[in-house]
Amino acid sequence: MNGRLTVNFFELIAKDDTTAARAGILHTDHGDVETPIFMPVGTQGTVKTLSPDELLENSVQIILANTYHLYLRPGDDLIREFGGLHRFTSWPRPILTDSGGYQVFSLADLRKLSPDGVRFQSHLDGSHHIFTPEKVIEIERNLGADVMMVLDECTPYPCSFEYAQQSNQLTLEWAERCREHFEKVANPHGYRQFLFGIVQGSTYPEVRQVSLNQLIKLDFDGYAIGGLAVGEPKESMLEISKFCAEQLPKDKPHYLMGVGKPEDLVDAIALGIDMFDCVIPTRNGRNGTVFTWQGRLVIKNAIYRDDPRPIDEQCDCYACRKFSRAYIRHLFQAGEILAPRLATLHNIHFYMELVHRAREAILESRYPEFANDFYRQYHLENKDSVLTA
Amino acid sequence: MNGRLTVNFFELIAKDDTTAARAGILHTDHGDVETPIFMPVGTQGTVKTLSPDELLENSVQIILANTYHLYLRPGDDLIREFGGLHRFTSWPRPILTDSGGYQVFSLADLRKLSPDGVRFQSHLDGSHHIFTPEKVIEIERNLGADVMMVLDECTPYPCSFEYAQQSNQLTLEWAERCREHFEKVANPHGYRQFLFGIVQGSTYPEVRQVSLNQLIKLDFDGYAIGGLAVGEPKESMLEISKFCAEQLPKDKPHYLMGVGKPEDLVDAIALGIDMFDCVIPTRNGRNGTVFTWQGRLVIKNAIYRDDPRPIDEQCDCYACRKFSRAYIRHLFQAGEILAPRLATLHNIHFYMELVHRAREAILESRYPEFANDFYRQYHLENKDSVLTA
Repeated sequence: MNGRLTVNFFELIAKDDTTAARAGILHTDHGDVETPIFMPVGTQGTVKTLSPDELLENSVQIILANTYHLYLRPGDDLIREFGGLHRFTSWPRPILTDSGGYQVFSLADLRKLSPDGVRFQSHLDGSHHIFTPEKVIEIERNLGADVMMVLDECTPYPCSFEYAQQSNQLTLEWAERCREHFEKVANPHGYRQFLFGIVQGSTYPEVRQVSLNQLIKLDFDGYAIGGLAVGEPKESMLEISKFCAEQLPKDKPHYLMGVGKPEDLVDAIALGIDMFDCVIPTRNGRNGTVFTWQGRLVIKNAIYRDDPRPIDEQCDCYACRKFSRAYIRHLFQAGEILAPRLATLHNIHFYMELVHRAREAILESRYPEFANDFYRQYHLENKDSVLTA
Repeated sequence: MNGRLTVNFFELIAKDDTTAARAGILHTDHGDVETPIFMPVGTQGTVKTLSPDELLENSVQIILANTYHLYLRPGDDLIREFGGLHRFTSWPRPILTDSGGYQVFSLADLRKLSPDGVRFQSHLDGSHHIFTPEKVIEIERNLGADVMMVLDECTPYPCSFEYAQQSNQLTLEWAERCREHFEKVANPHGYRQFLFGIVQGSTYPEVRQVSLNQLIKLDFDGYAIGGLAVGEPKESMLEISKFCAEQLPKDKPHYLMGVGKPEDLVDAIALGIDMFDCVIPTRNGRNGTVFTWQGRLVIKNAIYRDDPRPIDEQCDCYACRKFSRAYIRHLFQAGEILAPRLATLHNIHFYMELVHRAREAILESRYPEFANDFYRQYHLENKDSVLTA
């Protein structure tokens, strides 16, 4: 599918004996990514509050950036001129860009959907724009991410069977047009880019099946499961993920978009998911919620006023090596920027450690024990549905 | 003046031949500080946007923290319990605390000044408090800074001769009470703390003279020149600084409070000032103004939209090694926290490099050449009076 096929993109390394969990490697021209992997969200070309060096120090292997945001500001033309996102942002490792579809439907004003594409007004300045499948491919080529996503409509939850079906037809047409245009337009930056299809169909297995059949025929480099983590019950999320993951090609990476909480990752990895992205570790961190192996902790709470312990005594991130809960709480109370920095840093470290431990468990074929150990320690405060990205 | 006098606090190393510029060392139990020095402001126990490690990486030797803020939140009792500010904040090098007087007069509500001290209401929650000279010494002992400042009234500019005189009398009485109480109350943390007197007297040499005579008699570990950088013309600031610096003991450090712009530091060092603090590098950084050897630069301006150069091509800070003006401008436009982080980091690096180069010039007795070189390169956009802290 790409010019330089000397190294296959996805390499499957191991499979757990009793679950569908897989360990693999994504080979990109910006380095390898060990799966299962979590991708921190860097919407506007920066993972909020963190520097690229901090991401590297905390074993981040690939980040996600948002096509919609970067197209509007600073513009994909400018980023192309700077040699692509890696050079512009000084992030040397792989990047994945979404297609912008999700943001057009959640952020932009006055959207108008047509078979050709979607017209919208910028949420920043009201300017008029259109995203067609072809346009989005060109933008993503300019941005230069290692992994590009096709333009799709992410259906809201709940949505009717009819809506899911119709929307899926459009998404499939767009996927085909993206696939074709991807072949026509080269990467201006020279290195390899890969294109993922996105399975839609809401919570309807029949619609998901149509999506799967058609997308698999188009032979993408990888497959995402979209339209989940949008408010549906966790059971539906896992059920649909399982339904899709079982049918997706085994030799291609499987990416569950917008998921999720630590426990969601543990569950979805068991179903054969290889890649995740979610704003939870960064957004929650900025709001003062941090993750530990014992569960979530709201560091701003008064009970931490004089707590000399680190966020997590088992953690060796910079925040935990250097600072007490009392100091971090003080920083949040005082509105200091170091507060969201330290909480985000810790959360990203925690997520990377979580997928790393999951991978180790898969390589040793003891994923169920790993998941049981995780659940035994991890205190679930509530049974909320997975937060949306 | 202190228990362990095995090492003198201030050591004068060199004097420039043609100016009054001096190079010295402050010996503290948290390490040495090479003067002339700039002290970044860490009001609430953090230099805004930066981590302690970033301060260390950028050669910061001593930071300032605000007694008023830390007394109100999280409380000097809590910080004492944690072993003092160094341990609480994870900053291993020296710290100076102001007396809180300046903030009481600029931030607190319903201030009531009496010979005993100053009553005020917290700007945070309206709670009632009183700062007496004795109380402030006890708070600063609890905070555990290496250098403590006496309680004073920083006169506003302009103020009448009579007001300056009266205020100065009160400030001198307070200085004496601080000096006495400092001897009575030990440091709960064990290590040495030093106490500085603060010369007041507004822009009136006669009043400054009274202040100088009295404070020198009290034999403080160091002397600050207060009541400047509050809106007076730069000429007055330099004139009064010169008047004071010439009469201050040569074997004690001289600290010009709240100053200032890079050019102010260059000028005041020539008058014999050893220590500076100011919010300019941090506050301006957060607002998108950065300092270069060619002058100030407003990085948010549209002309930097596609500028591939670093902030300063002569600078080797992390921001300049890794990022373009275009990217940093984008981060400011997008409201990303990495923007104020990088701009602040660069500015602190610039200020530390400035005082380092000044010190080198003094050691080689070529301070006038250094100052001329600085002014030849540095573009002064306007002749504003020095910004207040």
